[in-house]
Amino acid sequence: MNSKFSKRSDTIQASEIRELLKLIGASDIISFGGGLPAEEIFPVEEMKVICGEILSEYGGKSMQYAPSEGYDKLRKIIVEIMREKGINADLDNILIVSGSQQGLDLTAKAFIDEGDTIICESPTYLSAINAFKPFYPKFEEICIDNEGLIPEALEERLKNNKNVKFLYTIPDFQNPTGVTLSLERRKKIIELANKYNILIVEDNPYSELNFTGQYLPSLKSLDTEERVIYLSTFSKTVCPGFRIGWICASKEIIKKYVLFRQGSDLHTNIFSQMQIAKLFEKYDVKANIKKNIEICKSRRDTMLDTIKAEFPKEVKYTEPKGGFFLWVTLPAYMDSKELLKCTLKSGVAFISGEAFFPNGGHKNTLRLNYSSINEEKIRKGIKILSNVIKENML
Amino acid sequence: MNSKFSKRSDTIQASEIRELLKLIGASDIISFGGGLPAEEIFPVEEMKVICGEILSEYGGKSMQYAPSEGYDKLRKIIVEIMREKGINADLDNILIVSGSQQGLDLTAKAFIDEGDTIICESPTYLSAINAFKPFYPKFEEICIDNEGLIPEALEERLKNNKNVKFLYTIPDFQNPTGVTLSLERRKKIIELANKYNILIVEDNPYSELNFTGQYLPSLKSLDTEERVIYLSTFSKTVCPGFRIGWICASKEIIKKYVLFRQGSDLHTNIFSQMQIAKLFEKYDVKANIKKNIEICKSRRDTMLDTIKAEFPKEVKYTEPKGGFFLWVTLPAYMDSKELLKCTLKSGVAFISGEAFFPNGGHKNTLRLNYSSINEEKIRKGIKILSNVIKENML
Repeated sequence: MNSKFSKRSDTIQASEIRELLKLIGASDIISFGGGLPAEEIFPVEEMKVICGEILSEYGGKSMQYAPSEGYDKLRKIIVEIMREKGINADLDNILIVSGSQQGLDLTAKAFIDEGDTIICESPTYLSAINAFKPFYPKFEEICIDNEGLIPEALEERLKNNKNVKFLYTIPDFQNPTGVTLSLERRKKIIELANKYNILIVEDNPYSELNFTGQYLPSLKSLDTEERVIYLSTFSKTVCPGFRIGWICASKEIIKKYVLFRQGSDLHTNIFSQMQIAKLFEKYDVKANIKKNIEICKSRRDTMLDTIKAEFPKEVKYTEPKGGFFLWVTLPAYMDSKELLKCTLKSGVAFISGEAFFPNGGHKNTLRLNYSSINEEKIRKGIKILSNVIKENML
Repeated sequence: MNSKFSKRSDTIQASEIRELLKLIGASDIISFGGGLPAEEIFPVEEMKVICGEILSEYGGKSMQYAPSEGYDKLRKIIVEIMREKGINADLDNILIVSGSQQGLDLTAKAFIDEGDTIICESPTYLSAINAFKPFYPKFEEICIDNEGLIPEALEERLKNNKNVKFLYTIPDFQNPTGVTLSLERRKKIIELANKYNILIVEDNPYSELNFTGQYLPSLKSLDTEERVIYLSTFSKTVCPGFRIGWICASKEIIKKYVLFRQGSDLHTNIFSQMQIAKLFEKYDVKANIKKNIEICKSRRDTMLDTIKAEFPKEVKYTEPKGGFFLWVTLPAYMDSKELLKCTLKSGVAFISGEAFFPNGGHKNTLRLNYSSINEEKIRKGIKILSNVIKENML
């Protein structure tokens, strides 16, 4: 039959990351493409105990329909996590979602009308673009530097555009650049949000994976007017396969999100909510996060050391202090998609940068992930990438 | 701050069912409101074995990011389930989703443009309305009788409206009425879809829970032009708490859905996909479904017998041959929401019917669930409901 797809179907594009994930499953490729956590830290042995206990304690309840807001024991644990970050939250401020990706989808449904402007970092998280695009917003990208997004550039946009719905930002170890927003700028951005009456969507999956031990306050903790919608996840601190994340926001906003989530997937897998809750009750999750930090930090060091030794000096790169990614800017005449074709032949993958810019361009950029690859492979892969770059220098 | 919600936020309403689920958790109420499967049939003991095996066999892979299309072993099992129903499908025709509710959300994203017409049964599944509404369709409701939706009424609408995107239908043991579409009408509806070039979204969660043993072919199995998008789920045959459903459709449609699902929640919980796959590999799921049928049938019998003995003759009701629900039509002057206020005081809940009509009205209807309540409570609850109805008769 003739296609009857919606107009928005034409605007959506395949996530290269997800396509790459399929490649990874299929071969021995060294992939800097995904955003996979180090599998070594997943609490596999703990889960053997936990699953049995859940089934004995809760029986069929662990497999039955459950409330859309989430499992209360897990919501309480999240309230505690929020308190430790200086965020005051009650149970009613927390909605458990099927990965923080769903938090982005619900945000789009609850807030975006066609033609609304969303301001975001340039570049920004690819799958946030894909979550927002089906609702036909306009994206305005704000330049970033080594201290994150530039408040003056933000104010310039806010002055000239009365139709801004929200700022979408990843303040800590941003995906894809690895850059962290400075404290001074955090304060300034909250001021601007108050002054120009906009919401802030703070996407914060990486904050725990901090290599320096110097934690900056989240935007949410600086928010005095309930303007910040905070998204986070257990994907980076426990495991991503269970798809458990959360939203922390005003009660009014959470209520609205709950209505949309009933139409989206009713509720999040209750068995896995119990798995995570029990993990926090019985085990030392923080010790595990420490182990995770050590692994990621060591891999970041290896990647940076190899880059410093191998990349031509014309190539610029970020030096993340946490998280999973660093960002490479090639000479302006290079196209990272063309490079990718070459490196794939030698068994190395990465994500070319253009997809991280909602309005396109910036073909000379690329994102590298270091969290899920062992150090030998990082060295080998970066050398291969470096050689391909050198071959393509003018 | 001032609310900045999207326009669609004003159109969405709380699902009474989900609100009731919260009530259920909190008290001893006899709730005919939910659509819970009988908890007794959940494979709790089997899961104790299965979880350990998954963790030993797959380790961290069972907790890592996974492909958006779903876990291939489970997709193969679904291909087999489809074949048994006379539906020819390959792996690429199957997308695993986070409950078939997500199938409805993805359908809305992939197909509905503002102002498109969706035709549905009158009444129809409440949470389908909530999945579609955020994309601003118009709903045209088609009358149903004891053989399901009336093809002549459907053709009348198709003749007069060129803007129909799809027919949404639940052919087997419909939610909320329990009515089943006859074979003759199934054939006629496929003919009409071909003639008027529309899609059919066939939502079929209940077909296995057939009390008569007489199975009718699904619309999808009668489809020769890849017009039917078939949704189903393990929620009614294994358990709902894992939130695992699937879509079976043309490869072109599945590809498009995969793109939208990447923006929605990336992928479905991989651990639970493995749980279901292993259950099918190691255990006799069909024997469990048989047990489920026996329980549900016996509860339906009890409910119907009590209704026949107790309800005043002015009250009409359906006699479902499978599934979870029956539908009650009160005298036209009654308002089931008012009745609900009375029955709640005596500890009995149900869903008033109006919410199942996308364009409202029909206040004198209500839905009763029998699958999750034991027979003593069914008798007690129906008597209480019946007394309240009698008290409100003119």
